[in-house]
Amino acid sequence: MDESKRRFIRQGVGLFAVGGLVAAAEQRTEAVEPPEIPPSMKAPGTGMGEYGSPAKYESKVTRTLIRSQPGTTGSGGSRTPLESLDGMITPSGLHFERHHSGVPDIDPDQHRLLVHGLVKRPLLFTVDALLRYPMVSRIHFLECAGNSQFLYQPAPPNLTAGQTHGLVSCSEWTGVPLRLLLEEAGVDRSAPWILAEGADAAAMSRTIPMAKAMDDAILALFQNGERLRPENGYPVRLLLPGWEGNMNVKWLRRLKVVAVPVMTKDETSRYTDLQADGKSLMFTYPMEVKSVITRPSHGMTLPGAGLHQISGIAWSGNGTIKKVDVSTDGGRTWVEAPLVAPVLPRALTRFRLPWRWDGIAAVLKSRATDDTGAVQPEREKFIAEHGNNAIFHFNGIQAWNVAANGEVKHVYA
Amino acid sequence: MDESKRRFIRQGVGLFAVGGLVAAAEQRTEAVEPPEIPPSMKAPGTGMGEYGSPAKYESKVTRTLIRSQPGTTGSGGSRTPLESLDGMITPSGLHFERHHSGVPDIDPDQHRLLVHGLVKRPLLFTVDALLRYPMVSRIHFLECAGNSQFLYQPAPPNLTAGQTHGLVSCSEWTGVPLRLLLEEAGVDRSAPWILAEGADAAAMSRTIPMAKAMDDAILALFQNGERLRPENGYPVRLLLPGWEGNMNVKWLRRLKVVAVPVMTKDETSRYTDLQADGKSLMFTYPMEVKSVITRPSHGMTLPGAGLHQISGIAWSGNGTIKKVDVSTDGGRTWVEAPLVAPVLPRALTRFRLPWRWDGIAAVLKSRATDDTGAVQPEREKFIAEHGNNAIFHFNGIQAWNVAANGEVKHVYA
Repeated sequence: MDESKRRFIRQGVGLFAVGGLVAAAEQRTEAVEPPEIPPSMKAPGTGMGEYGSPAKYESKVTRTLIRSQPGTTGSGGSRTPLESLDGMITPSGLHFERHHSGVPDIDPDQHRLLVHGLVKRPLLFTVDALLRYPMVSRIHFLECAGNSQFLYQPAPPNLTAGQTHGLVSCSEWTGVPLRLLLEEAGVDRSAPWILAEGADAAAMSRTIPMAKAMDDAILALFQNGERLRPENGYPVRLLLPGWEGNMNVKWLRRLKVVAVPVMTKDETSRYTDLQADGKSLMFTYPMEVKSVITRPSHGMTLPGAGLHQISGIAWSGNGTIKKVDVSTDGGRTWVEAPLVAPVLPRALTRFRLPWRWDGIAAVLKSRATDDTGAVQPEREKFIAEHGNNAIFHFNGIQAWNVAANGEVKHVYA
Repeated sequence: MDESKRRFIRQGVGLFAVGGLVAAAEQRTEAVEPPEIPPSMKAPGTGMGEYGSPAKYESKVTRTLIRSQPGTTGSGGSRTPLESLDGMITPSGLHFERHHSGVPDIDPDQHRLLVHGLVKRPLLFTVDALLRYPMVSRIHFLECAGNSQFLYQPAPPNLTAGQTHGLVSCSEWTGVPLRLLLEEAGVDRSAPWILAEGADAAAMSRTIPMAKAMDDAILALFQNGERLRPENGYPVRLLLPGWEGNMNVKWLRRLKVVAVPVMTKDETSRYTDLQADGKSLMFTYPMEVKSVITRPSHGMTLPGAGLHQISGIAWSGNGTIKKVDVSTDGGRTWVEAPLVAPVLPRALTRFRLPWRWDGIAAVLKSRATDDTGAVQPEREKFIAEHGNNAIFHFNGIQAWNVAANGEVKHVYA
């Protein structure tokens, strides 16, 4: 055992001893008599269903709706309730949303995808045609550039983990490598850009570098096994693994190969990052290395000292999570948390660490490192470098204060 | 290139050439003019939602309900529509169901799990207590012992891939290793069995070998990120990776450590396998190595010769899929299909193979091999060995006939 781990344990964080006794689960009792036969065993239950839904007892586990443009229809976002979830996959019903003019109603039989511009043969695809192409499946996170934007604010927000960090979700995506269609169209490989346009009323559009299009870009048709959900681009969306959400154009209708960036509204007036010096960064594509502890987190109350489990997620748009360090003393000391396999590139990675809480106030933090060597920065350092004019690409470390009475709250620490 | 692959290609199966032209996607056209602006771009769409659902255009993609006991409430099964899905994960809304007395309505605050029998300290757990224990996440298939039972019949069934093989699904399961609770209760490790009982009206119960309980058994609380669905055992189920579905007891209320198998109704009158010689096999736990082509499959019609994609799933309750061979000539020649990463133990594994159909009648088959060396048998060989008295544990090779007019039908070949 190295010195940092020894220090960590002295401060009350003990790694769970496999083979030992879980002494701290106070809510279990020693049973003398078996419990009574419950009502569920005294009468038949309900029948089978064609398409299932969550238990009624979980009805509070929903996306948090945040409308960014009051008075508009469907412009805004909804956030994944990260604090109620566990594992790597986000159920599609709880995948975050970010729309610029609502969710369009698109009949897949009527939908067309055009590939044109600097190509030898402009091509028009039906959805049925796309479904015949060779496909790939990949588990990838998707994160809105504006995720965690409340952390730019001078005071810590009174919001849950999902409300601050829930513009990230993770799905298994299946679809056609974009490269195949570009090659079939006879793309001019010296042309460096591709305009991608959605069939929503905002005509959401971004210019995509050719290199990414020819690398790992996917025209996604399936999400978590079934066809895309409407709010995720049904019937076809662009997927650019690891890059900011808005570039993963939903309801994709057009790909135009061009020589220069089109400078659409979505890459000029929006989705640029105003820095401290008054200049804006443009074309900031990959989402940086990041993590957040989802349990315990803001709004929860620990029932008492003893064994708890710290659980969280980490991800990087630049590669694969290499390690996650966890601190329970506000960042003075750290211990590496085991990662849950499979650890995949540009996918959410779950980390967990048993924690024996001694009942004294504690500040929990997680710090992710990816395989490029990038390390998630402390918030103070991040703000010092970038200022707080921007609302995008915040990836600072998240701190949760656990009070002596067990209440967990967002803090800057 | 080896000789088998050369033969395969001569017979019309060409591996898709990366970097080449996809010449056979007849439904795409060469576009001169961009398509008209669709209605979806002329008015705002609908707003965000708290919990999403599939597109209305996918309303036919449902589980197929099959009630095994007419006149009863909730006794029967529903099957995953495998032919409409792709990838590895099954969306929870389409996970197959098999209930013996319906889906019980269980309030998680009232639910208790008792661990008793040959233990030092009988323990009674609330769900909140279980949620504090260290957890693991694993992607595993779950298959009903009775999956593919129609293949025991003398004539090929007029059913889709989902209707014959859809009692298998795959989820990311998260929960507490069973070993932890048994150790905390002070289990007598020399006791070889554990009775597991569900809180449904059928009191579904099986006796589980101690070795499996101490190895990889999980008390699952989460499925695909969110809490278990009611039809999958909410609030807690037993998960025995790779073992027949009924042993993965749902709505788990009791684990009793015992010296001998309890011989419950579910392991004597049901879930035993009547062989050709009139004797029954008992305690047949792991689901054998198996695969099925999901596309093209029974009920589909190929729109014409040219490029198609063969896509299917393979799995083994005994380990990890090592390879899947595909034949388009009824099993005379085979070619190995690429597997989609990550290839995980006791999980569905997707395989795909581009196929250039020449328009001549063909018989498609897939044959899975796992890392124990077990090979999925031809149906004829399977029936010769096991007879056709049984309804469980069928793992023979599935054949689909593609007629010259493109119609795909179930055949024995």
